[in-house]
Amino acid sequence: MKAFITGGSGFIGTFVAHKLLQNNVEVTIFDRREPNAELTHLCNCIQGDLLDLEKVKNSIGGHDVVYHLAANADISMGVKDTALDLQLTTIATYNVLESMRLNTISSIVFLSGSGVYGDASDTQCVETAGPLLPVSLYGASKLAAEGLISAFSNMFNMKALIFRPANIVGGGQTHGVLFDFIQKLKRDCHRLEILGDGNQTKSYLYIDDLYDAITIALDTQQEAVSVINVASADTVDVNWIAARVIEFMKLSEVQITHTKGKVGWVGDVPTVRLNTSKLRQLGWVPQYSSKEAIDKALTEILGV
Amino acid sequence: MKAFITGGSGFIGTFVAHKLLQNNVEVTIFDRREPNAELTHLCNCIQGDLLDLEKVKNSIGGHDVVYHLAANADISMGVKDTALDLQLTTIATYNVLESMRLNTISSIVFLSGSGVYGDASDTQCVETAGPLLPVSLYGASKLAAEGLISAFSNMFNMKALIFRPANIVGGGQTHGVLFDFIQKLKRDCHRLEILGDGNQTKSYLYIDDLYDAITIALDTQQEAVSVINVASADTVDVNWIAARVIEFMKLSEVQITHTKGKVGWVGDVPTVRLNTSKLRQLGWVPQYSSKEAIDKALTEILGV
Repeated sequence: MKAFITGGSGFIGTFVAHKLLQNNVEVTIFDRREPNAELTHLCNCIQGDLLDLEKVKNSIGGHDVVYHLAANADISMGVKDTALDLQLTTIATYNVLESMRLNTISSIVFLSGSGVYGDASDTQCVETAGPLLPVSLYGASKLAAEGLISAFSNMFNMKALIFRPANIVGGGQTHGVLFDFIQKLKRDCHRLEILGDGNQTKSYLYIDDLYDAITIALDTQQEAVSVINVASADTVDVNWIAARVIEFMKLSEVQITHTKGKVGWVGDVPTVRLNTSKLRQLGWVPQYSSKEAIDKALTEILGV
Repeated sequence: MKAFITGGSGFIGTFVAHKLLQNNVEVTIFDRREPNAELTHLCNCIQGDLLDLEKVKNSIGGHDVVYHLAANADISMGVKDTALDLQLTTIATYNVLESMRLNTISSIVFLSGSGVYGDASDTQCVETAGPLLPVSLYGASKLAAEGLISAFSNMFNMKALIFRPANIVGGGQTHGVLFDFIQKLKRDCHRLEILGDGNQTKSYLYIDDLYDAITIALDTQQEAVSVINVASADTVDVNWIAARVIEFMKLSEVQITHTKGKVGWVGDVPTVRLNTSKLRQLGWVPQYSSKEAIDKALTEILGV
């Protein structure tokens, strides 16, 4: 079995590469960034841009499955550069699918996001919910990518797993609220600015549990295109996370401030709740709750 | 009131331009094609490509509302040129929205399509249906455009009406099953090839009824983003349409053949049924059934 991982130098890509290697899968990493040092010896590493269609076409041949994990990961950037998500997620996904078609590769695993649901307020989103009205360009690009994957699957006989995950956390993460708080407190241990009122309430998932979900779905899903929510059952708010980071960093007398408004940035969603009945019916049980996932990630990031 | 119509030289765009002019709206048409001869004297006509972002930016300023009607209209082409819908619909829509943002234009009317629902079989699709898994690149690009419109609306305070219409018919149409059958029979009045088994069953709407739906929704919808199905209550199948065209053209002894399979092309959907309760609750009642719409369009196209 040969796997092609886009975004293979990122947090999730690196993790997935290691897991696949443990399962004797041959792995090719395709990323704009340099790969994780350890992986350079274990994988075929291609440094390239998904916007370079020729390079993707010429790199993807001979693989059995594509883990398409590359995307613009910084949701807040969309308001400053409105073309970013269109390019790095929508057009990049088209280039991946077109390259798969030309090389007759029929299996794709895609990480979408809860952003496709838009702002559903307190409603628990189930996969059959609609209309899908994203409030960020990040969400719009994930929705566009889902649509492209669905169309290519039907037209060119591909099989796709589309995951809509909660916030994924773990030792290697390079962005997100946990990472940001740690960086801010490393720069100034007396002050922590929280974007928004800190009541944004979301679910966090330890990366191992995401990988288990992918494995179970690959083993069980028969449909041409499956859409699957992935989240732990509980949610935590950003103020709780801030306090937890401060506690783990053993800081005291940190002055916490909040920026105006309910959300951290234009396009942020204050409350995200995902219904995971579909995945649980396949036998998936997350090992970690949101709180446990954050504690585990903090332990790994801080090395404490 | 000043309106900017993308795709203003097409069938629906030309119709909408005439209607707006009758209501004393100043109209600018933006299209790659030359405008309808009559409209050149009545509107500001700009010949340009929506993929030329600079030109769109420089043309759109000073308008109050954008009727974004331009798109790739030939669904069957997606299988031959997979980039067509991405460019002519998804990226073109991004360019329109980005140009609106830069010129502080906040109102958009968009024609999406039933293609966003994918193949729902006999299910009557309601606007809250999900997941949205298009089976054509046409449907995927309409879904991507909906997502972009929703994100821009939330992030930059725009207001959007998104219509998911049935097949629109009328005298000026330049593509679609009616138009194709007439063209084929004009070339050879003894033979008519139907793509698929002819049992594809869809709803057809006379263009006047679409325009009424837009007017009613503009007057009543308060939400930032509204998604609205538009269709007459009945459906007809393609074999019925073929017989009707032959009758209207006063032909006899036409040998009808069918291509293999249930659908006309890769990405075609055999059965489309749209629930229109939302629009009917706003007071919309179509003047024509699907059968009446086809008869009226045939009369206008053939001048009989």
